[in-house]
Amino acid sequence: MALRGSLLVGQSGGPTAVINASLAGVIEEARKHSEIGEVYGAVRGVEGLLEEEMVNLGAEGEEAISLLPNTPSAALGSCRRKLTDGDYARLLAVLKAHDVRYLCYIGGNDSADTTHRIGRFAAEAGWEMRVVGIPKTVDNDLGYTDHCPGYGSVARFNAMAARDAGLDTLALHTVDTVKIIETMGRNSGWITAATALARQEPGDAPHLIYLPERPFDVDRFLGDVKGEVEKGRGCVVAVCEGLKDAEGNVLVSFKYAVGTDSFGHKQLGGVGDHLVSLIAERLGIKARFDKAGTIQRVFGLAQSEVDVAEAKMVGAAAVARACEGVSDQMITLERVSQSPYRCETGLAALAEVANAERPVPDEFISEEGNDVTAAFLEYARPLIGGPLPGYARLRMKRVPKLVGS
Amino acid sequence: MALRGSLLVGQSGGPTAVINASLAGVIEEARKHSEIGEVYGAVRGVEGLLEEEMVNLGAEGEEAISLLPNTPSAALGSCRRKLTDGDYARLLAVLKAHDVRYLCYIGGNDSADTTHRIGRFAAEAGWEMRVVGIPKTVDNDLGYTDHCPGYGSVARFNAMAARDAGLDTLALHTVDTVKIIETMGRNSGWITAATALARQEPGDAPHLIYLPERPFDVDRFLGDVKGEVEKGRGCVVAVCEGLKDAEGNVLVSFKYAVGTDSFGHKQLGGVGDHLVSLIAERLGIKARFDKAGTIQRVFGLAQSEVDVAEAKMVGAAAVARACEGVSDQMITLERVSQSPYRCETGLAALAEVANAERPVPDEFISEEGNDVTAAFLEYARPLIGGPLPGYARLRMKRVPKLVGS
Repeated sequence: MALRGSLLVGQSGGPTAVINASLAGVIEEARKHSEIGEVYGAVRGVEGLLEEEMVNLGAEGEEAISLLPNTPSAALGSCRRKLTDGDYARLLAVLKAHDVRYLCYIGGNDSADTTHRIGRFAAEAGWEMRVVGIPKTVDNDLGYTDHCPGYGSVARFNAMAARDAGLDTLALHTVDTVKIIETMGRNSGWITAATALARQEPGDAPHLIYLPERPFDVDRFLGDVKGEVEKGRGCVVAVCEGLKDAEGNVLVSFKYAVGTDSFGHKQLGGVGDHLVSLIAERLGIKARFDKAGTIQRVFGLAQSEVDVAEAKMVGAAAVARACEGVSDQMITLERVSQSPYRCETGLAALAEVANAERPVPDEFISEEGNDVTAAFLEYARPLIGGPLPGYARLRMKRVPKLVGS
Repeated sequence: MALRGSLLVGQSGGPTAVINASLAGVIEEARKHSEIGEVYGAVRGVEGLLEEEMVNLGAEGEEAISLLPNTPSAALGSCRRKLTDGDYARLLAVLKAHDVRYLCYIGGNDSADTTHRIGRFAAEAGWEMRVVGIPKTVDNDLGYTDHCPGYGSVARFNAMAARDAGLDTLALHTVDTVKIIETMGRNSGWITAATALARQEPGDAPHLIYLPERPFDVDRFLGDVKGEVEKGRGCVVAVCEGLKDAEGNVLVSFKYAVGTDSFGHKQLGGVGDHLVSLIAERLGIKARFDKAGTIQRVFGLAQSEVDVAEAKMVGAAAVARACEGVSDQMITLERVSQSPYRCETGLAALAEVANAERPVPDEFISEEGNDVTAAFLEYARPLIGGPLPGYARLRMKRVPKLVGS
C-alpha cells in the first residue's frame, strides 16, 4: 500500500548553478504521485527546519517553477548545520506535525550524513518516513556516483574563464607575464582540473595545473613557471585554493578566520596572492591572480545543459524511488555510454556516501603532477555540455622585414 | 586626391571582450576603400612595431574575420609601451618602409597620447600619414566620449556576477555573512558602479558600493556593513581595486610589485582580502571575497551586444574618417537618443583625450558615498545590451507553525 503524506525538500551546503534544477525535478515529480499530499520546502535546510521554517511549494506559480532550473544558487536557502544529539527529537516533532513521510535532501557528503541520521532517528522512533539524498556539489567529491550535479557547470565556467583569461595573458604577456587562476576545491582538485578543458590547440592556456592531490613543492613550481615563461608567450597557471604541502598542511589559510563552520572546515584563502608574491620575490617576474570565488559556482550564464538536465533528473528520481519504497539511499549518476554520452540514475546507501571524499584519481593526474591526463579530459568533457564557443584564430602571416635593426 | 598607401592597425593596453570587434570593423571598412592597399596589423602595438613585427591582415580567411567580433582579448597582441624620444625615428622608418599612410590605433588614454605623438613626428618629418585613435577601455575613463567600447561588456559581466554571487550570499548568509566583490578600476569607479545593474528588486545585492572617487573611510565602511548585516539576509559589497584613503593613497598596493609599467602605474592588489580581514577582526563577522580579475574584462560569454556593435562601428568609422582626410583625432561615441538608445560616432582631438581621465561624476554617486544614483543606472543600463536573464523568484509562502519552540 502506498505511503500517504507530505513531502519535504531541503537544500544544503554551498550553492551551485543547478541545485534549483534538482528542486524543480522534485516538485514536478511529486505532482505525479497521488500519495504525496503537500510539497513543502525547508528554509535553509535543517537550520530553518529546527525553527519550523517551511514554505508551501504548492503555492508557487508555473512561471517560477519553469524558471527554477536556470536560476542559480539555492532558492530555499542553504546552511552548513551539523545536527547535535539534542536536535533530532525537535526535528522529528516538526516532521510529524506536518505529516512528512517523504524527505528529499539535496547536498554533498555532510548532507548525506545528516539525511541518514534523521532517517535512522525517525525509524527508531517508529515514524515511517522515506529519506532520499540528492547529490549536489561543485567539488565533485562524492563517491558511488560518476560525478555530482553542480560540477559540470563550475567546470564549464572555469574552462571558459581559463580560455579567456589565457587569451588575455597571451596578448599582454610582456607586461603581465604570469597569471594564476585560483579555483575552488577544498580537498580535491576536480574544479581546478576542469580548466584544462579550455585548451583547443597545443600551447593553449592553462600551461600548468596543480591539484591538492599532490603535495605542492614551491621550488618545483617556480622551476615549472620559469620554464613556461621562457617559451615567450606568458604562463597561465591553474591552482586549487586547497593546495597542501608535503606535510599535508594547507599552503595558505585565512589570517583572521572567524572560527570554523560546524563541520570543522577552516576558512581557506590566499593561494593566488601567495604565489604571485613568490613569483615576484624569487623569480622577479610580474604575475597577477584571478580568483572568481563564489562567482564560479553560481554563474548562471555558464550553466552546462547536461548538468541542468541531470540535476533535474536526480531530483525527480529521488521522489520516484521514494514512492517505490526506497529509503536511506542517495541517487547516483551512472555513465552507461561515453559516445554518445548518457547517464542513468542509480542508488547508493547514504551511510556509505556520508563523510567519504573522492579525490581525483591517479590516472587523471600527469606524472609530473603539474597537469591532467587525456583520461581526465575524456571523463570531464561531456559534463560541460557541448563545446565552448568558437573563437577566431588569426593566421598572423608575418610581413617581411625591410628595415635593418 | 585620395591618399594612396597601406593601413596599419594596432591594439594597445588592457585587453577587452570587444577590442577584436574594433579590429574587424577596421578590416572590413578598409576593404571598401580602393585607396587603401595592404592592411597590416602591428604585433603587440608599438612594441612589436619597433621590431618591425607586422602581419598581413589581407591574408586572413573570411571565417576568422567573421569570428573576430565575438573573440575576446587582443588578437594582434597588446602592450603598455611608452615611447621614448629615440623611438620615433625608428617607428617612422618602419612605417615609411611599408608605405603606411593610415594608422589606426585602438586603446585608452595612454594610447591616444602615443598615437598623437607618432602623428606629430611623422608630420614634422614630412611623411603624410593620417592617424586616428579608436577608443577602448574597460575603465570607461576617457573624456570626450559618452562611454568607451569594452565597458558595456565588463559592466554586463559584473552585473551578472553581482546578481549570482548575491543569490549565493542570500542562500548561505548564516555561514558566509558578508561578500566582497572586488572589481577592476585603477582610478575610476565605473566598473564597480556597474554591479548596481544586478538589482531587480529592493533589497537585492549589491547592498553597498564604494568607488575610488570618494575617500574610503574604514570606520564608516564597517558601520555600513554592520547595518546591512543586521537586516538578516547577508551583505554584498562591491569595491574597486583602486580605493583610496583621505590622503589619496591607495588602500592596498601589492607587496612584492615588480616595478611599475612604463607609464608609471603601480600594481594594485588585495583590497578584497584586506576588507575581509578587517570585517573579521573588527566586527567578528565571517566574510569572503570574489575577485574575478582579468576574467571580468575578457569573458566572452558576457559580451554586451551593444558593446560589440559599437566597437565595430568605431573601428569602421576610424577608417572612413581617415579616408575623408581626418587625422590626429579619436573617434568618440555620442548618445543621440536615450529611448530607444542610440549612439553615433563623433571626433575629439587626440591631444585632448591623451592622458586625461574622466572619473565617475558626482551626480552618479549617492550622497552617502556608498552607492550609485538612479541617474547612473539610466546612463549605464543601455550599454550592457539587453536585460539580464530572467530568474525565478519563489513566493516562499510560509507554512503555519504547529510545534511550540
